[in-house]
Amino acid sequence: MVCSKTPAACQADTERVVGTLDVVQPIFERLLVFGVGLIGGSLALAAKQRGLVKHVTGVARTQASARQALELGLVDAVAEDLSIAIEGADAIFLAVPVAQFPNLFDLIARVNPQKAVIFDGGSTKAGVLQAAFSAFQSSQTSLKQFVPCHPIAGAEKHGPQAATADLFEGKSVIICQHQALDIVALQKVSTFWQALSSRVGLMSCDEHDRIFAAVSHLPHWLAFVYVDGLLRSSTAAVDTQHGGGGFRDFSRIAASSPEMWADIFFENKCELLKQLKSFESSLHKFKKHLEAGNQVALQESLGQASVFRQQWRGR
Amino acid sequence: MVCSKTPAACQADTERVVGTLDVVQPIFERLLVFGVGLIGGSLALAAKQRGLVKHVTGVARTQASARQALELGLVDAVAEDLSIAIEGADAIFLAVPVAQFPNLFDLIARVNPQKAVIFDGGSTKAGVLQAAFSAFQSSQTSLKQFVPCHPIAGAEKHGPQAATADLFEGKSVIICQHQALDIVALQKVSTFWQALSSRVGLMSCDEHDRIFAAVSHLPHWLAFVYVDGLLRSSTAAVDTQHGGGGFRDFSRIAASSPEMWADIFFENKCELLKQLKSFESSLHKFKKHLEAGNQVALQESLGQASVFRQQWRGR
Repeated sequence: MVCSKTPAACQADTERVVGTLDVVQPIFERLLVFGVGLIGGSLALAAKQRGLVKHVTGVARTQASARQALELGLVDAVAEDLSIAIEGADAIFLAVPVAQFPNLFDLIARVNPQKAVIFDGGSTKAGVLQAAFSAFQSSQTSLKQFVPCHPIAGAEKHGPQAATADLFEGKSVIICQHQALDIVALQKVSTFWQALSSRVGLMSCDEHDRIFAAVSHLPHWLAFVYVDGLLRSSTAAVDTQHGGGGFRDFSRIAASSPEMWADIFFENKCELLKQLKSFESSLHKFKKHLEAGNQVALQESLGQASVFRQQWRGR
Repeated sequence: MVCSKTPAACQADTERVVGTLDVVQPIFERLLVFGVGLIGGSLALAAKQRGLVKHVTGVARTQASARQALELGLVDAVAEDLSIAIEGADAIFLAVPVAQFPNLFDLIARVNPQKAVIFDGGSTKAGVLQAAFSAFQSSQTSLKQFVPCHPIAGAEKHGPQAATADLFEGKSVIICQHQALDIVALQKVSTFWQALSSRVGLMSCDEHDRIFAAVSHLPHWLAFVYVDGLLRSSTAAVDTQHGGGGFRDFSRIAASSPEMWADIFFENKCELLKQLKSFESSLHKFKKHLEAGNQVALQESLGQASVFRQQWRGR
């Protein structure tokens, strides 16, 4: 099963990490952020506090969110006319569920800004890039200036009140290269992330979606499925009061945003199903050992997993 | 499917929580601890530091562990003759994998101590009680004095070096009542746990094994299976370096002791398989929605799980 959506648009990965660049502050004059929740709100706040932007305009789905983002000081203003906001920005950051990207790309393509760097915080990349190539056919400047990003930072909380200025500190940010990408746009966005104390790494969209299906999308999927399974019991609320540290940590990500994760699962369906197949093979093996009373074989598999996880050192 | 192993031996649960009792210190003169790893070592250390015992003797599987437990001050002495150690103890705590309990019960039954309270830290209870009833047929004093316990405290680390004096502070300890249980033995052990700052709750063995299959054994099982699935890929070591906080927390318990968990899975096989069936039903439902492109239905299920987990408050 080959999942690649955009093989021609994704460059092979040659250089893994973008080096440190000189930071000329502010990096952007006017930043426009679509989505002022955990990711967008945190990015806006962090950029303002570090002087990386002169002015931030936010776009929120609801008036309540917009008001909250303003009150919390995440943004300086809320966009009233989207076309004018896009025209006036030299950087546009997309922090809405990835399913909304095609519409936003279309909107940006209609305005066709000539100087704005466009980047995003979406957790899937191949579909996003495909949508950008499709929308920006008549807006080549935007395609050149589109830098697909994935900050490996998040929390099970969401909304403007979940935003923090240190969300990206010490975290990885994956930038996915593509054939049309302008090197200056790449360097600007990379420098911006590094100025937020993030570590920037490069890979292709396909590699990104394969890796994150394994280390992020599948665990979220399984955590949701696990809690859904518990809810089949009428005593779930009482039973789970007995949950300890293992339950707390294992199920934490099941509290994540349903909308965002439904989007991610559908966007990266092919890679997720591949990973799920691998999980199911292991589940079948474990069950076979349990049902056959083969303690030696089960313990050996548990041991291999245990050693691997003990040796894991995350970035 | 009915999983109960010892319906006649498990009393129904009437009183959920044992009240606070006056603590007369030390509660035990000579405590004998089988297994000086995370659970046994922590209990020994905490009891010594709080003056709840006058003297602790440890039994370790290897000379290295015994030496380590002595050096770390977890125990005062290491048992040289097990029969003499059992005879001299007024409290015996079992903190070895539950599969070793039958042999230890047989050993205790042969010595047939008349004053020793016996309690344990095993994560499954019905099989343990069944083994106690079987071994103590000719040693009724030991059966009366056997208080099945499950402290809901642990970590993915194991061995004497993982022991800490505060492991049980603020944590729940489940005590499983049974028909033969002496009330004084129950009160002593309950008081002991409370003096370690644990909260004591009572339930039947069957209820215990049902609840912990759901909130502990299944999550551990799934975490091990998940990591085993990852290991099918030759790029697992590199890919998982991109794992963030979600990966870290979700997979943490896969680093747990393979021996201990193989034991638990086999001991509580019936309840685990029941829980697994429920998980598989949910997995099937989620996959059906994903494959059918039914985003509304998938998001609804994700939403229910998310709300439930957001509202969860552990003990």
